[in-house]
Amino acid sequence: MTFKVGLLGLGTVGTGTVEILQDPAQRHPLLQELELYRVGVRSLDKLRKVDIPPERITTDLEAIVTDPEVDIVVEVIGGLEPACSLILKAIAHGKHVVTANKAAIARFGAEIFTAAEEAGVYVLLEAAVAGGIPVIEPLKQSLCVNRIHAVTGIVNGTTNYILTRMQAEGGDFDDILADAQRLGYAEADPTADVDGLDAADKIAILASLAFAGRIKLSEVYCEGIRQISATDIAYADKLGFVIKLLAIAKRDPQASVDTPHQLQVRVHPTLVPKSHPLASVNDVYNAILIEGSPIGQVMFFGPGAGAGPTASAVVSDILNIAAILKVERGVSTQANGKPLLDPLLACSHQHYCTIAPISELTTRFYARFHTQDYPGVIGKLGTCFGEHNVSLESVVQMNSQNNLAEIVVITHDVREGNFRAALDEIRNLPSFDSIPSVLRVVQ
Amino acid sequence: MTFKVGLLGLGTVGTGTVEILQDPAQRHPLLQELELYRVGVRSLDKLRKVDIPPERITTDLEAIVTDPEVDIVVEVIGGLEPACSLILKAIAHGKHVVTANKAAIARFGAEIFTAAEEAGVYVLLEAAVAGGIPVIEPLKQSLCVNRIHAVTGIVNGTTNYILTRMQAEGGDFDDILADAQRLGYAEADPTADVDGLDAADKIAILASLAFAGRIKLSEVYCEGIRQISATDIAYADKLGFVIKLLAIAKRDPQASVDTPHQLQVRVHPTLVPKSHPLASVNDVYNAILIEGSPIGQVMFFGPGAGAGPTASAVVSDILNIAAILKVERGVSTQANGKPLLDPLLACSHQHYCTIAPISELTTRFYARFHTQDYPGVIGKLGTCFGEHNVSLESVVQMNSQNNLAEIVVITHDVREGNFRAALDEIRNLPSFDSIPSVLRVVQ
Repeated sequence: MTFKVGLLGLGTVGTGTVEILQDPAQRHPLLQELELYRVGVRSLDKLRKVDIPPERITTDLEAIVTDPEVDIVVEVIGGLEPACSLILKAIAHGKHVVTANKAAIARFGAEIFTAAEEAGVYVLLEAAVAGGIPVIEPLKQSLCVNRIHAVTGIVNGTTNYILTRMQAEGGDFDDILADAQRLGYAEADPTADVDGLDAADKIAILASLAFAGRIKLSEVYCEGIRQISATDIAYADKLGFVIKLLAIAKRDPQASVDTPHQLQVRVHPTLVPKSHPLASVNDVYNAILIEGSPIGQVMFFGPGAGAGPTASAVVSDILNIAAILKVERGVSTQANGKPLLDPLLACSHQHYCTIAPISELTTRFYARFHTQDYPGVIGKLGTCFGEHNVSLESVVQMNSQNNLAEIVVITHDVREGNFRAALDEIRNLPSFDSIPSVLRVVQ
Repeated sequence: MTFKVGLLGLGTVGTGTVEILQDPAQRHPLLQELELYRVGVRSLDKLRKVDIPPERITTDLEAIVTDPEVDIVVEVIGGLEPACSLILKAIAHGKHVVTANKAAIARFGAEIFTAAEEAGVYVLLEAAVAGGIPVIEPLKQSLCVNRIHAVTGIVNGTTNYILTRMQAEGGDFDDILADAQRLGYAEADPTADVDGLDAADKIAILASLAFAGRIKLSEVYCEGIRQISATDIAYADKLGFVIKLLAIAKRDPQASVDTPHQLQVRVHPTLVPKSHPLASVNDVYNAILIEGSPIGQVMFFGPGAGAGPTASAVVSDILNIAAILKVERGVSTQANGKPLLDPLLACSHQHYCTIAPISELTTRFYARFHTQDYPGVIGKLGTCFGEHNVSLESVVQMNSQNNLAEIVVITHDVREGNFRAALDEIRNLPSFDSIPSVLRVVQ
């Protein structure tokens, strides 16, 4: 079975999407049933990072969304127009849609989802919030039986990067913004990020999913980080807090029986206790904390932007639709009348993985030795490790009493087999008493 | 449409499952189409936390898995037998299966999934790894187009609790294990947990999904935490590490072209740099870090056990199957021939949420004041806040120069409207110069 994809836009995310589609090895096998059927761009002359047969590229984006051959339209143009009109036209033509467009969904979600419902098509948008971090699908599926109380997120990488640097360097907002712009972490016009508007789009989308109702974006309270000073960051630090731009959607605890769906939805800089799970989410990383009953707290953490992570979400959405289409089409075509299983949910692999023996592992080690306390012991240790090709990162004498010294060694990456052979030899050296512990260090 | 659930086991997780099924308000509406049709228990005499009509309870578990009325069998008995035989018999009778049984899947996954594939039924197992944290479904769906490089997890709550306490208190393993047993965090026979066997089951399941191949559990290298001493924890701390029991599955970087699927799969205590995302996962919490291309790193964090979180995963799996069945049955019954949309993936809500105005928010505040530096200023501040029903947690004078003092206030939970009214009044007090910043504190 082949599923034909019409891609609108070949910018950063579009290019990342094509890169995955063109390199299916060691990814889900269903990927090989996708065909990159048409790619719509603004200009044919631009130099591209990816090779696409010229006959598949067009500047006529309308022709893609109306093409009867196309199964799934992928909108990664961004912005409101022509993206919204193209999404709506694709839906009207019975296409399933995958989009990364938070602005379009936050503003025109009502129109888009009503049209999709009527046309009987899916509109998936994992990439619209927190880039590659799975959060939309977990809210829809893995957490679907929970009564959600709150969704709290660090969902804007630019502001988190700025606040992290202000915290680390004690610098002022304007200086660090300027530097972030120079380094490409903030845009020339940083308004959407630093004034919290991007985060407001995202929390509106998350709130709508978490609380199963529509959200008027104009009702989302929004405060940015321009007014945060180095002084406040320093005082917050002294009091045990870091300052983060949080996007919060919460079932209002004051809501009455008459207004069970009353929510608070807001974006503002917030003092977060250092022990809070969101406090250690730094730099451009994003994280979303979901609280509900009976789940308690779960947090999703990862890269909130970037071509690769965002494309991961886009293509996974495409594959989710392809899996559903495969089942649907399979129902009518299977001769035995038995429904096909969803290829993403079924476990159909048959072969066994080969597992390398632990002696072949390459890792760093920590080991503690009890030795006689006299000069030259560390030298002996080093020589013995060296003979077995074990290179040391550090050797520290920690303690010494009753003529016994305690020595802690950390190695570089070494082959476990070599390291064990060295230990066997060291164990038999006359000056060595015992090796109370050997532990691996994470790579 | 109704989907009939046959529940095997009414222990902690089974009870949690019934509690969700019996209380569908504010959860996904599809929940109301599930019917708790039969509940299989070992003894009818036991006192139960949940009310189930007696005619639905039986000790004849075989009768449930062979009942032609049952659509979905939920196995939460645990252990290998009779669980495995019941799962296989349910599959043979065309039932879809939801299980929380990591031991059964890690040991007999091959038989179970082969049978399921032949019978055309799903076997879902989100609850088998990391309790309520969505990780199986994200691996299968949201991250399905990634080439996974590594899965690294803290997947055993008991050992993480013990190691966290050893780190915090400097205590020895045996003492803290005994205390954990007394408090119910460790079982009377702690072998499966402290020797890493439970973690090995879980990483075998995760590896199988991440690398799309079967795993022989006997080939998973496994080392527990019994030999970890307070000394090692202290030395690791000094060197910038914490010690965690990690479960690791990794594509072997040494793998050749002939062995592209060679993996390392292992469980052992590991030194983790304090800056590593897994280092701050403490107590009974679990976390799974997934690395792949193009996603980079994503981490899932949450409660790895407990009745509520585990039941959340069990019932979400049930609902995922119900959603698929609804689509399948809808295909043949819809008069217009148009496929029904998966009710979990479609956005069908129509109403708007009510969003409370920000003045109605109840939150803690941080505010910084510049005032004249003379005795009584703090008193004035306190009085004014008091008159507006704003209760203060702390008032600290941070700084004082040129006759101006800098005062930082943190409030208790207060109504934002009241707090703003107090600020308006304070702004007009003769001794107050300015209020350079007002920030909210996370609840």
